[in-house]
Amino acid sequence: MTRTPLSPTPRSTPTRLRDRAATDRAALDAVLDAGLICHVGVLLHGAPVVLPTTYGRIDDTLYLHGSTGSGNLRAALTGDLSVSVTLVDGIVYARSAMHFSMNYRSAVVHGRPVEVTGEADRLRALRAIIEHNAPGAWDAVRPPNKKELAATLVLALDLTEASVKIRSGDASDDAEDLAGDAWAGVLPLQRVFGAPVPNADLRAGIETPTHVLDRTATRIPM
Amino acid sequence: MTRTPLSPTPRSTPTRLRDRAATDRAALDAVLDAGLICHVGVLLHGAPVVLPTTYGRIDDTLYLHGSTGSGNLRAALTGDLSVSVTLVDGIVYARSAMHFSMNYRSAVVHGRPVEVTGEADRLRALRAIIEHNAPGAWDAVRPPNKKELAATLVLALDLTEASVKIRSGDASDDAEDLAGDAWAGVLPLQRVFGAPVPNADLRAGIETPTHVLDRTATRIPM
Repeated sequence: MTRTPLSPTPRSTPTRLRDRAATDRAALDAVLDAGLICHVGVLLHGAPVVLPTTYGRIDDTLYLHGSTGSGNLRAALTGDLSVSVTLVDGIVYARSAMHFSMNYRSAVVHGRPVEVTGEADRLRALRAIIEHNAPGAWDAVRPPNKKELAATLVLALDLTEASVKIRSGDASDDAEDLAGDAWAGVLPLQRVFGAPVPNADLRAGIETPTHVLDRTATRIPM
Repeated sequence: MTRTPLSPTPRSTPTRLRDRAATDRAALDAVLDAGLICHVGVLLHGAPVVLPTTYGRIDDTLYLHGSTGSGNLRAALTGDLSVSVTLVDGIVYARSAMHFSMNYRSAVVHGRPVEVTGEADRLRALRAIIEHNAPGAWDAVRPPNKKELAATLVLALDLTEASVKIRSGDASDDAEDLAGDAWAGVLPLQRVFGAPVPNADLRAGIETPTHVLDRTATRIPM
């Protein structure tokens, strides 16, 4: 298991780790790009609240969105938030209860988000969010109109302060347990897309598009 | 999409909703039991921190565990925390960008945890956590010894204050978009277990146990 600090502040990233920081940044992007949803923690009335939501990434920025009426998103603008993306790759069966584990890739981002203003930037962010979960979809559908945009809050979070934690491979048992009869190993976990289910009100003659069909052939770590 | 309040306080659960609250409680248990990991939000140095971890449930209590040296778990004991479990069931493709969505089941629990003390209660909680992600495993492996137990912090969180949010079914498009050429529907998402990978140091002659093999035949919503 490795924990890789990414924060390039003088405190957290000594000059001698510059090469490693570059690698870590790629690891962060890989986790964020492979995830589907994130869990956002905000401070609401003095207590943390954790909610799932979708997100998108463009370069060094993570984008979140929601209704302008969302108390949680509004609260996120008044202080730091924490965004967690976790991919579970397998269940690790050990020979002793205490060494049971999961194989996973986890990214945690901290920071104070800013509201994205300006129509072009907002559309770019919303496109990134939709394309993150539905690649190829944005150009095939009606873009947001003025009214929809006015009802949407878009937040940008800088990816500077983040950490990546990854566990992979075998169970790590104590030496004295190796001679026992218990099995040890990893049960891999993957996500698969099933056959697309057309909307009940889909107009006759509209075929399932390639950008949807193509995803059902893939089986990727979740 | 429905949001079902579960908190049985006078404020949040009027008497007229008693029947519904019972149903909701079953919905909460179903989401918690189907999930693999949770995301826990704690307050650390004044800011929320969200981290993934495993959990277990017995009746009305959610159990978390970790190292006694974990600053995050220690912090969780000094104030309220928020625990979120999310199952993503599908990507909802709409005819307009703003109606893209996910089908999901989400449980969010709030409260102030207490440390579980007493060896029998701690073992019971740890068993629940391991059995949650590896059913049938506890009885097949070495249980925690005194030293391991001493290094483990076990937290109990009452499930009283919780909410469940579920989205299922078709995309909900605006009437004026139905006549267009865009496809709409759901791309279902499921999790599957792959073939078990035995540890490199597994002793010869130990077969993969039934409680592991049986899981690879299942394909369940993630």
